Amino acid sequence: MTTPTILTIPARRGAAAKVDAGQHVRVINTHGTQVVDTWAFSARDITEWMSMEASRASFLRLAARVGDTFVTNQRRPILTLTEDTSGGVHDTLIASCDAPRYRLLGVEGHHDNCRDNLHAALAALGLTIPATPSPLNLFMNIPWTADGRLAWGEPVSAPGSYAVFRAEMDLVIAFSACPQDILPINGRTGRTTEAHFTTEGA
Amino acid sequence: MTTPTILTIPARRGAAAKVDAGQHVRVINTHGTQVVDTWAFSARDITEWMSMEASRASFLRLAARVGDTFVTNQRRPILTLTEDTSGGVHDTLIASCDAPRYRLLGVEGHHDNCRDNLHAALAALGLTIPATPSPLNLFMNIPWTADGRLAWGEPVSAPGSYAVFRAEMDLVIAFSACPQDILPINGRTGRTTEAHFTTEGA
Repeated sequence: MTTPTILTIPARRGAAAKVDAGQHVRVINTHGTQVVDTWAFSARDITEWMSMEASRASFLRLAARVGDTFVTNQRRPILTLTEDTSGGVHDTLIASCDAPRYRLLGVEGHHDNCRDNLHAALAALGLTIPATPSPLNLFMNIPWTADGRLAWGEPVSAPGSYAVFRAEMDLVIAFSACPQDILPINGRTGRTTEAHFTTEGA
Repeated sequence: MTTPTILTIPARRGAAAKVDAGQHVRVINTHGTQVVDTWAFSARDITEWMSMEASRASFLRLAARVGDTFVTNQRRPILTLTEDTSGGVHDTLIASCDAPRYRLLGVEGHHDNCRDNLHAALAALGLTIPATPSPLNLFMNIPWTADGRLAWGEPVSAPGSYAVFRAEMDLVIAFSACPQDILPINGRTGRTTEAHFTTEGA
């Protein structure tokens, strides 16, 4: 077995790759504090994508556990969480950041954002999508209370910890190393970093 | 002041209407047990729609309370919940039902579904959308636990109770009286009914 190539999700930028059914995708929180917004699309039809709202209806949880399978907007399995050394704190509830979000947070002019990163990463593969799906926010800590309040938590993952997913169909996976440096979701220092991923096996 | 016209969302079907900024939309759970999937779109640009993932990030709750404002995928206010006599149990987490959902539930052949109802209701206004947004599921009871488990609850709303929203922009609102008769979300009898709405004021 060959050592898989370690690919970089540059700080504040996106990356996308084709993955074959049966391969495993390992997403590594290299520095431990970096949220990685994640999307997946059917390789056969880019308008069939991983759906947080359909996945919650399938595994009946606010967040996936090891063994849970994310499904598409056509209810087909697309990614199964098979291993997780990161503490298992990931978010399915919150939109990816975007230009209007940063304007509301008081930023004047350009701010890197996950929505633009997603579309740019897909464009690099020659792909365009007609809308922005709700992301799977790996390593993002959005705690909830019994009465339904949400909060912006800090990541709990250790440096080098990771989550592994099995591809349940031929797919395109896309990531954004979230450039959020105003809220504490990438740690209270506001430091945004690179992260890494591999595709392995099958 | 004139009495507003009461419009019908037929059982197992959709309905859509244009609403001016400042008007109020009252959604009435006529029989008390009917889930009403609800969507809203900017009248100026149909690709700007009410976003559950952006709204949760804005009001920082799993479900809206009176006074909370739903925002679009451009983070602009679109609907504010101004009054609620229904018990306040609505869902922002679960995808609208669709044909593949019913196939997975064992249905052979056609089953009415909220996704098709949405697209048909918009088509009746000459509108098409490039994807299906995650719905606001009025009167739908999806309880969560502290450890994040979800369940299919029964509605808690009384017959004739309602939720009222103020339109924060000129918009198109769309509804589907959910035809789900396999899971108990429209009550354990599986009876699916009509619901009603009005647009008032301004």
